[in-house]
Amino acid sequence: MAKINLRPLDDRVVVKPSDAEEVTAGGIVLPDAAQEKPQRGKVVAIGGGKLLDSGKRGELSVTIGDEVIYGKYGGSDVEVDGQELKILRESDILAKVV
Amino acid sequence: MAKINLRPLDDRVVVKPSDAEEVTAGGIVLPDAAQEKPQRGKVVAIGGGKLLDSGKRGELSVTIGDEVIYGKYGGSDVEVDGQELKILRESDILAKVV
Amino acid sequence: MAKINLRPLDDRVVVKPSDAEEVTAGGIVLPDAAQEKPQRGKVVAIGGGKLLDSGKRGELSVTIGDEVIYGKYGGSDVEVDGQELKILRESDILAKVV
Amino acid sequence: MAKINLRPLDDRVVVKPSDAEEVTAGGIVLPDAAQEKPQRGKVVAIGGGKLLDSGKRGELSVTIGDEVIYGKYGGSDVEVDGQELKILRESDILAKVV
Amino acid sequence: MAKINLRPLDDRVVVKPSDAEEVTAGGIVLPDAAQEKPQRGKVVAIGGGKLLDSGKRGELSVTIGDEVIYGKYGGSDVEVDGQELKILRESDILAKVV
Amino acid sequence: MAKINLRPLDDRVVVKPSDAEEVTAGGIVLPDAAQEKPQRGKVVAIGGGKLLDSGKRGELSVTIGDEVIYGKYGGSDVEVDGQELKILRESDILAKVV
Amino acid sequence: MAKINLRPLDDRVVVKPSDAEEVTAGGIVLPDAAQEKPQRGKVVAIGGGKLLDSGKRGELSVTIGDEVIYGKYGGSDVEVDGQELKILRESDILAKVV
Repeated sequence: MAKINLRPLDDRVVVKPSDAEEVTAGGIVLPDAAQEKPQRGKVVAIGGGKLLDSGKRGELSVTIGDEVIYGKYGGSDVEVDGQELKILRESDILAKVV
Repeated sequence: MAKINLRPLDDRVVVKPSDAEEVTAGGIVLPDAAQEKPQRGKVVAIGGGKLLDSGKRGELSVTIGDEVIYGKYGGSDVEVDGQELKILRESDILAKVV
Repeated sequence: MAKINLRPLDDRVVVKPSDAEEVTAGGIVLPDAAQEKPQRGKVVAIGGGKLLDSGKRGELSVTIGDEVIYGKYGGSDVEVDGQELKILRESDILAKVV
Repeated sequence: MAKINLRPLDDRVVVKPSDAEEVTAGGIVLPDAAQEKPQRGKVVAIGGGKLLDSGKRGELSVTIGDEVIYGKYGGSDVEVDGQELKILRESDILAKVV
Repeated sequence: MAKINLRPLDDRVVVKPSDAEEVTAGGIVLPDAAQEKPQRGKVVAIGGGKLLDSGKRGELSVTIGDEVIYGKYGGSDVEVDGQELKILRESDILAKVV
Repeated sequence: MAKINLRPLDDRVVVKPSDAEEVTAGGIVLPDAAQEKPQRGKVVAIGGGKLLDSGKRGELSVTIGDEVIYGKYGGSDVEVDGQELKILRESDILAKVV
Repeated sequence: MAKINLRPLDDRVVVKPSDAEEVTAGGIVLPDAAQEKPQRGKVVAIGGGKLLDSGKRGELSVTIGDEVIYGKYGGSDVEVDGQELKILRESDILAKVV
């Protein structure tokens, strides 16, 4: 996969969605038909963190390379170099696959 | 039950729902027909806690192994190793069964 | 009444609703027909208090044994040992009967 | 009027609504037909005040015996000793009659 | 005009609406037909100010005698001594006529 | 243009809308037909600033004489000395023309 | 492109949308038909930053010249010197193209 030329703002991350029906190392199956189910993907870019009232930025809990589960309807789809990517806020990410 | 490979974010927890109609040690019966009733399950993974304004994370009130009651319509369903799990925010948990 | 095996989270309390039409020691009558009227019950379990921004928990204003008036539509019903109970947030409680 | 056996929580107050069409000492007339008009009543019990972020409770601006004007649709009706009372938050009270 | 026997709470003010179509000293015309237009009136009573998080009360920007412009649909109408008055929050007041 | 006899409250400003189709010094054209487009006008009066939690007032970013662009549907229309004016919150102002 | 005579307020930025179907240096394709897809453009003016509770202004994460991805439905369209521009809040910007 080519280097991603996107730098998301604030607490956003860019995720490359996994192919449907794939069985992960952790054995998580997310069938294509599961229309309402959360989706799985890999984090390919992260933002600088949410601006706090103190003026500092909160550290993100995910990093590039993490496998994550996220709500199907969160975020925005963008197409980069022919790849479909998703720009999500960190709060749309439910869990990391570890 | 196999080790769960999910690490929920923030104040989220992963819960394995109990089978319906079961009578718990505490004698709580949650019949299958009770469509509007809260559900019961066991906490199988917990997040790092909610990010507070101070930059610290709030400690969760539940831990792995806790039996909990939660609202039927909260959270997201995920399937791991053939098990149906639920990812909830701690605020969706009504009570622990003690 | 058997000991309640529920420990509600945060500022939630478990209330055992009173039978309708009963006249309380304080003389409060809440007829069954009063569909829109607040309900009365006895507190049987309380949570640890709401998590404040300071990281401490706010002390609850009600305690186990208190008779309380609460909005009919707040909270969630659970069945424990054949008893119908209600899990409410403290903010759903209107008043104590003293 | 018998002593009221209700202790409202937080910034709530218990008000005994005045009879409609009555002319007050201050000359305020609130005709029964004025369905949309605010209502008048006398404060018969007050709560301990709203819990502030500091952990203290804010002092109420009304006290027992005050005549108050409040929005018709705010609060909850309860019946005590055959009297119809209203449990309101202080913020539902528009003004004191002085 | 008789002294107003109302003491509004918090950041509320009592306003006596001006007669429609009147031309003010400042030359502001608010025709009766302008159903959606803001209204004009004179402040006849003011509250103690909004309770701030610090526990103090914020000072009001208007005082008794001020001519003010306010949104038609804000506030509550009350009738005192045969006069139609309006109880508004200060935030419903758009401007003072100076 | 006569002096404006309005003093808006808080972070509000009074704007005199420009004539439609006019080309500004900055070359901005806002055709009359552009029903959904932002509007342009000149600031003719400003408020004292928004009350902050600290009890101080925030300084406005616009001043009398500024040409501003604002959303068509924000604010309230008032008529002063035969002129149609607009009372807006500063947050309804998108940009200054410089 | 002529100098832009707009100074957006607070955390707003002025963006010149890119032509549809263009392939960027980063290889991002945003076809015209992608009605729901985020849009791409170049930042041509930035505001002074969001007013924080402390009274200071937060620094923007984008600067003039940045290529940005933003949600199609955010912001307001304005026409300057015959160019269609967009005034957005920084929070409507999803990512920078780097």
